[in-house]
Amino acid sequence: MRSYTEGDDANLKNPRKLGERTILNRLYQGLGTVSPDQRRTSLRVGIGDDAALWRPRAGYEAILTCDWFLAGTHFLAKRHPPEVVGYKCLARAVSDIAAMGGEPRCYLLSLALPDTHTGEWLRKFLKGLRKASRMLGCPIAGGDTTRRKEVLINITVQGEVPRGRAILRRGAHPGDAIFVTGRLGQAQYGLRLLLGSLKRVSSVDPGLRKHFYPEPRLAVGLWLAAHGLASAMMDLSDGLSSDLIKLCHASGVGARIREHALPRVKIAGKYANKFDATELALHGGDDYELLFTVARNNVARIPHKIARVPVTRIGEIVSKKQVVLEHKNGVAAELKNQGWDPFR
Amino acid sequence: MRSYTEGDDANLKNPRKLGERTILNRLYQGLGTVSPDQRRTSLRVGIGDDAALWRPRAGYEAILTCDWFLAGTHFLAKRHPPEVVGYKCLARAVSDIAAMGGEPRCYLLSLALPDTHTGEWLRKFLKGLRKASRMLGCPIAGGDTTRRKEVLINITVQGEVPRGRAILRRGAHPGDAIFVTGRLGQAQYGLRLLLGSLKRVSSVDPGLRKHFYPEPRLAVGLWLAAHGLASAMMDLSDGLSSDLIKLCHASGVGARIREHALPRVKIAGKYANKFDATELALHGGDDYELLFTVARNNVARIPHKIARVPVTRIGEIVSKKQVVLEHKNGVAAELKNQGWDPFR
Repeated sequence: MRSYTEGDDANLKNPRKLGERTILNRLYQGLGTVSPDQRRTSLRVGIGDDAALWRPRAGYEAILTCDWFLAGTHFLAKRHPPEVVGYKCLARAVSDIAAMGGEPRCYLLSLALPDTHTGEWLRKFLKGLRKASRMLGCPIAGGDTTRRKEVLINITVQGEVPRGRAILRRGAHPGDAIFVTGRLGQAQYGLRLLLGSLKRVSSVDPGLRKHFYPEPRLAVGLWLAAHGLASAMMDLSDGLSSDLIKLCHASGVGARIREHALPRVKIAGKYANKFDATELALHGGDDYELLFTVARNNVARIPHKIARVPVTRIGEIVSKKQVVLEHKNGVAAELKNQGWDPFR
Repeated sequence: MRSYTEGDDANLKNPRKLGERTILNRLYQGLGTVSPDQRRTSLRVGIGDDAALWRPRAGYEAILTCDWFLAGTHFLAKRHPPEVVGYKCLARAVSDIAAMGGEPRCYLLSLALPDTHTGEWLRKFLKGLRKASRMLGCPIAGGDTTRRKEVLINITVQGEVPRGRAILRRGAHPGDAIFVTGRLGQAQYGLRLLLGSLKRVSSVDPGLRKHFYPEPRLAVGLWLAAHGLASAMMDLSDGLSSDLIKLCHASGVGARIREHALPRVKIAGKYANKFDATELALHGGDDYELLFTVARNNVARIPHKIARVPVTRIGEIVSKKQVVLEHKNGVAAELKNQGWDPFR
């Protein structure tokens, strides 16, 4: 990796002059204690060569995804603790593997850091990243590191899924039931609490937990893929109103969902006037729950919980290419995406 | 992909308000005409789902690599034409696949763009990227796009290599001959011409060709892997003095190379006093040639050209963990890496 602005020199006496090699050594030390099941991972060559090498399992297809996680865009350098940045950058990227019904195998970390972030910040960042890596069974396989005035992160995740079992966005049909996992809007609720708070928050604040430490629904995705029960699936990263439209667009269908059926976040009493749980559930992003559809004759086979995660039916796929929200009072209206509407 | 600063809104009348979806559509249009051999690529799902899906070939291992390409760090927004940025970001990432003796299968593009770069700049960038994608037989499989005040690029490349055939950095042994492909220092020569030029340069200037349009040595890497002739290999991205030390470090050996044997760039007459071809060959980066070692009893099987690329023997691996340069006058001295020296 050639950089115009830095050499490989590591001058330990001058923290502003740490080179790529020293950062890489810190990454090794910070992440090397992850002890994946090597047979499962089949990672033959990790950090330290031109590229990583891993051995695909016979009968499986490979999944590949990447995600930006940029200071000022996807997280706030002054509000998000470094452990959270480390945990979340990997967790949200792995969520795309869960959304295909797959399992993660390994990941690459592309990291750009200011000189001020190569000490304590990096140590805490790696602690959070290691936590996600262990929890998700997804060891580091390589990456690229450079110096930069802002923290820039890009995560690549390599996954696998049994051949023909991947669940795509494009398979929903009219009549299919629509399900979501967990409660919607929890992460957005946490973000609002964070942004509304004047003091530095604790990374273990329960209201912030879902925003700080989202859990990719790998076990749910695997169960659905193994049982062949979902006709379409994606993860909820941009909010239900945005993502359901994307799923419908990919499948060439529409949807009708019911407000009263939405699994909403519980708002603490003192915030009851400040937050609308339905708005949070419809438009809040960053939940990393799964949105999936099930053919009518399979609906009875979907339990109330999959891998201990509650699963809620929120509506049905329809042929008219429009997403409609049925309100509690029985009135139905088109559900608008705050952003772009692919149906126009 | 959740972003705090932008919605998905695409307002075509206001170029400062283009959303992710519109950029994605431009990417589709700009890159969609790449027509890979689908059977070879086995790409089942590309852009438009949560992740890409591809089918590994039986008997092969998967290669995974990523590379930053950041404005101001890896290229200069005002000096490097957008076609060059597009071409080079993929070519240099694919070079890591060549360095393992593998073939590229597909790539992911993570792109962050200012609003000012979503029109003409993006069109030319995609033209360059498409050129590399076609030349290297490596179609796009997905990615992530966001808005940012500077151009940020990260490329992930997925490759394959027959099981057990990958050539690593760690296999060099004392007595092995050291080879390089092509001429060294050409890219650095081009960069210096670019930086020394006051006027905007043409992207087809022959002196700049290697700096602008490096060619990953895929065919050479494949040939060496197929014949099992290289004991260790890496690509030259940071310059020979830096990269040879890395290869030696990975293999636990040292090296002795000869100045007179280095395949150097030809300096134009008017620059003869300005540039030292030996210095460029030793320390110039960005060439993306291959550096490889060959056991003594296999040296006679290495032709002068592999896949039409000249191959030059420049020295030998030694057991003493030091890289030594033998000068033309017969004097030998330790070859210093401008950066970090892994032997101290």
